Amino acid sequence: MSNYTSIKLAARPAPGPITADSFDVVQNEIPTPGQGQLLIKQTHMSLDPAMIGWMQPDPESYIPPVGIGEVMRSSGVGTVVESKHPGFAKGDRVGGLMGWTEYLVSNGDGLNKLPAELDPETVLAVFALPGLTATQGLFGFGDPKEGETIVVSGAAGSVGSIVGQLAKAEGLNVIGVAGDDEKCAWIRDELGFDGAINYKSDDIAARLAELAPSGVDIYFENTGGPIQHHVFDRMNAHGRIIVCGMIADYGTDKPSAGPNWIPLIKKRITIRGFAMPDHLSDAQGLSEKLTPYVMGGKIKFRTHILEGLESSIDGLNLFFTGGNRGKLIVKL
Amino acid sequence: MSNYTSIKLAARPAPGPITADSFDVVQNEIPTPGQGQLLIKQTHMSLDPAMIGWMQPDPESYIPPVGIGEVMRSSGVGTVVESKHPGFAKGDRVGGLMGWTEYLVSNGDGLNKLPAELDPETVLAVFALPGLTATQGLFGFGDPKEGETIVVSGAAGSVGSIVGQLAKAEGLNVIGVAGDDEKCAWIRDELGFDGAINYKSDDIAARLAELAPSGVDIYFENTGGPIQHHVFDRMNAHGRIIVCGMIADYGTDKPSAGPNWIPLIKKRITIRGFAMPDHLSDAQGLSEKLTPYVMGGKIKFRTHILEGLESSIDGLNLFFTGGNRGKLIVKL
Repeated sequence: MSNYTSIKLAARPAPGPITADSFDVVQNEIPTPGQGQLLIKQTHMSLDPAMIGWMQPDPESYIPPVGIGEVMRSSGVGTVVESKHPGFAKGDRVGGLMGWTEYLVSNGDGLNKLPAELDPETVLAVFALPGLTATQGLFGFGDPKEGETIVVSGAAGSVGSIVGQLAKAEGLNVIGVAGDDEKCAWIRDELGFDGAINYKSDDIAARLAELAPSGVDIYFENTGGPIQHHVFDRMNAHGRIIVCGMIADYGTDKPSAGPNWIPLIKKRITIRGFAMPDHLSDAQGLSEKLTPYVMGGKIKFRTHILEGLESSIDGLNLFFTGGNRGKLIVKL
Repeated sequence: MSNYTSIKLAARPAPGPITADSFDVVQNEIPTPGQGQLLIKQTHMSLDPAMIGWMQPDPESYIPPVGIGEVMRSSGVGTVVESKHPGFAKGDRVGGLMGWTEYLVSNGDGLNKLPAELDPETVLAVFALPGLTATQGLFGFGDPKEGETIVVSGAAGSVGSIVGQLAKAEGLNVIGVAGDDEKCAWIRDELGFDGAINYKSDDIAARLAELAPSGVDIYFENTGGPIQHHVFDRMNAHGRIIVCGMIADYGTDKPSAGPNWIPLIKKRITIRGFAMPDHLSDAQGLSEKLTPYVMGGKIKFRTHILEGLESSIDGLNLFFTGGNRGKLIVKL
């Protein structure tokens, strides 16, 4: 019998950085799948900012919190090592919600078989949550039109980088906001954004005036923080704001104030908050919308690889510090 | 030759109450209409909160400000006293944007002939801006569904009182927010709202918990002010917020902070700001939507009548103090 490792949530994290105290690292015996089940060895695990929310009990959230004592929730890619399920064979590559674990037994529900030509990093960085979220947010709610201006916060992040590239492919003036010069250079020089703002060191208002001289039509909000009020102040009439993430406020006791609502009337602005679980029933349609951009070479990405299951714990803190360079993936 | 009075904007008002310094009251000679024109004697003039915004230059607003030296903008009802226009005859009742004036010459653009059976107060209180705004906001953006809960701020106001009655007719649980006990009693006992909150004297959070035990699905915002954060905190998943007015902040230098946007994601809330001029091209359709409710006796209203053109000036301050009892109409 061999063992494998999994990580369970042990306690609700206090505000501030995530620490090892919140988790139990446990050893388990690799199980044998029963009839109708399959055994998966996870090879690549996605870390996403939403996980920080999943650790907190919140009766109002779109998804139940991870229970104390439960394996931490995450999506990943793995290989079928044994199958007693008619739909899966040994060697198949599969993707889905697998959790922080090296092995798992599944009955196949919610698992997707992955085409052999798609490498796991592309799956997790583009065709999993980041790409579907970007596609739903931009096309489902943003109504992007050629010649318009979009500002994307968290623009070097997994969702923001795809939103900006999709918008660029549609002919918009694309401005990305990120937290350091290297990220700004990457979205501008590698991804083709029209402009980048370093919200930590630039004069945000001056840079926005320069990069969006005719105002902002779409604001794709991934972060919250100081950029929000500046962009809000420059929104054009009939502007659309899509609220996808507020990482700047997730770890705080006292979330920052939002903008006053008078401009919503004057400029007839719509603000739309969304969360992907509502739209997963349309994952197929979203994938089909996204695929031509990927096939056409319009979507570049980079990955930030952590090694080993236990690196996940401190890895979450990279979302607070902005220390990651690309999509965070844990290799097992 | 006889004279008539009109009132022109003389200066942009400073923050705070509206004073006579901002206006010029002028005497004019009653003109003779030219070919294709008609002369109207205005009999009833509407005062609306939006006027306070129209006095301020704001490049971002949905409508140009009233120019210095121009007759103050308003809608009204009048009688044709002389016509050289083929579409109008002496004695016709007409409605439209007439301004703060006892007489005006028009070429007919933007004027509506009014059915003889509709009295001018019903026109201004229901079928003009208030009713069209309520209909567009509630049905165009609110997506009201039987059994849902709606909170309406400014519920005793011209728009809010109609929104609440339309929602009641649709089978919603309707909670109105107003600034004194008499208004609360009126919306509850006369208009049939399910509950009323006096935001000045009630424990807002406790009253909301009591009146909206299953949360709030639609928030129709006419005022801003202290109620906003309380209702926002009780919004349900997939809630809709329609922002129609923010009178509590119109006269201030420092508009109050809005709510943080995290709940927009968790609860997938949409906030939609709107202004009626965008929707006047659909005035006919909105009237047709509204008419059956009025004909069916579902829409009650009351008017607060001021006498004489010059009463308009101080009349605007009633929107700040909440001192009006019903739709503000100036009888000329």
